[in-house]
Amino acid sequence: MSLDDKPDNTAKPHDRLAEALASDMAAVDALIAERMASENAPRIPEVTAHLVGAGGKRLRPMLTVAAARLCGYEGSLHHNLAAAVEFIHTATLLHDDVVDESKQRRGRPTANLLWDNKSSVLVGDYLFARSFQLMTDTDNLRVLSILSNASAVITEGEVLQLSAAEDLNTTEDTYYKVVRGKTAALFSAATEAGAVLAGAPEDQIAALHDYGESLGIAFQVVDDLLDYLSDAETMGKNVGDDFRERKLTLPLIKALAKADADARAFWTRTIDKGDQREGDLEHAMELLHATGALEETRAAALEWADRGRERLKVLPESELRQMLDDLADYVVARLR
Amino acid sequence: MSLDDKPDNTAKPHDRLAEALASDMAAVDALIAERMASENAPRIPEVTAHLVGAGGKRLRPMLTVAAARLCGYEGSLHHNLAAAVEFIHTATLLHDDVVDESKQRRGRPTANLLWDNKSSVLVGDYLFARSFQLMTDTDNLRVLSILSNASAVITEGEVLQLSAAEDLNTTEDTYYKVVRGKTAALFSAATEAGAVLAGAPEDQIAALHDYGESLGIAFQVVDDLLDYLSDAETMGKNVGDDFRERKLTLPLIKALAKADADARAFWTRTIDKGDQREGDLEHAMELLHATGALEETRAAALEWADRGRERLKVLPESELRQMLDDLADYVVARLR
Repeated sequence: MSLDDKPDNTAKPHDRLAEALASDMAAVDALIAERMASENAPRIPEVTAHLVGAGGKRLRPMLTVAAARLCGYEGSLHHNLAAAVEFIHTATLLHDDVVDESKQRRGRPTANLLWDNKSSVLVGDYLFARSFQLMTDTDNLRVLSILSNASAVITEGEVLQLSAAEDLNTTEDTYYKVVRGKTAALFSAATEAGAVLAGAPEDQIAALHDYGESLGIAFQVVDDLLDYLSDAETMGKNVGDDFRERKLTLPLIKALAKADADARAFWTRTIDKGDQREGDLEHAMELLHATGALEETRAAALEWADRGRERLKVLPESELRQMLDDLADYVVARLR
Repeated sequence: MSLDDKPDNTAKPHDRLAEALASDMAAVDALIAERMASENAPRIPEVTAHLVGAGGKRLRPMLTVAAARLCGYEGSLHHNLAAAVEFIHTATLLHDDVVDESKQRRGRPTANLLWDNKSSVLVGDYLFARSFQLMTDTDNLRVLSILSNASAVITEGEVLQLSAAEDLNTTEDTYYKVVRGKTAALFSAATEAGAVLAGAPEDQIAALHDYGESLGIAFQVVDDLLDYLSDAETMGKNVGDDFRERKLTLPLIKALAKADADARAFWTRTIDKGDQREGDLEHAMELLHATGALEETRAAALEWADRGRERLKVLPESELRQMLDDLADYVVARLR
């Protein structure tokens, strides 16, 4: 890979990153394929192949590789680290689908539906264990510490989300705690660990951690906003899924903060009590617009993306840094 | 703690070990209580407290502490390691109960029954992550490697057990693969990691690994045999649970190897097809006795225990070594 080969600047930032890091990412893919195998239990590669075959963008491992390269890393252990990050992500997806009783993921039936919950739980555990083996290969205890902390925080976020579900008293503070856990913790660990592996100076490590965190938060806020904006075609899910599932995401929390007595009664009936009738989603959308909740959520996402871009300035200018900057911009681009 | 304080030799080996290692185990308990907490997600300590409060014998962490002490360790990081071992064990119990849809564990309702499967899956994940944090604290990469390998092997064993269930072609080889995974891998990792942390010579590390593995296998073979021998009072479960659940454990595998055409038809109907009728368990017991399957299983358990005791001889004689020797003897004592 040479970062000097000029990639096509009209492509999406994610694709340009993928192109610039193509040989690294091919090595990561090979490592993923090798380590997800199990001689002893053939069911394991069946299930993982289903998920890994479904693609996904490998965004998180790409962030690890990019952070390591950006900090001048020239070894090959960042591949192990990136594969570990992807395994943690895949394990949490497998367990999430059990927890949420999901039937679709990336437009395909989920593993819990194709096999059973048992396989999803155990194969998720297997990938967690494999991710720790991969990290141990790096011989870098600080990297292990970052990623084991992230794994704990991810789970705390998911558990907190369970107890916050359907609870109208959920605050923005709780929302951000959940988001930092379930989404941003792995983004920030991915970038931070890459920088640590590269032996970067502390201010660059901190900057890349913060960039990853802000990017992850922006990513999730956008996701929660688009749930109320997009149509099934673009998102692979339906408008208002979060409303129907009574999830307290940022748009709803902001609308609740400005609800009058009537609106409050409406949210209590539909979210707290779960009594949803025909026309409720449309009324919910009206309230979300009228209170400015959607507009405020949009502004929050843009602010997080800008915060992430700002932190990148700590790092020396380079084409790769510009790609990460563009990536943060791209995450929120659909909202501009 | 002083190992020179003569413990009561008439007590059970497990209790004598607990007494000899009392101050170490108190420190381990304190660490467990501290690390299972979560400020961000109060549901987590509720669930873990339920399980940890239920007691259990802390056999695995005690083995870690004993191995470290036996190899002359004088620091305190073996407490972290022991707590990590107990967390891995507790996490696998939580996930097992989801996988098996269990309703009781240690005579109390399971977490999946008291809360829900979601909480059990996520809190198990949390404990896995916490265990890796605890291991990282030891600053010892070899220890991390041993325990992350064990975690992968445990899961492989569980997955292999899933696909071997109800399959009359299951061999003793497959049975031992499952047992090495689901039970013995954590025992051997517990003793080996303790020895590694203590900086023991390689032959002692290998001996303690083998002791743990043999003890674990003996432990599981006894458990599988007692399923056909004991009554509900002594085991907390009923005679023949494994038969009813169509599990291919060692007694059944041995009986199948000697089955004539009639017996084969019986096992095919009851285990393969799952068509079980009144009187079937009694007939199964007759076949298990008549083929010598129970007697052979008993002999296998005794042999594994002896193999473990033999390996201890590599270590210098001490009171603690004698206790581990007695422990291996005790595991199979109910069969003598």
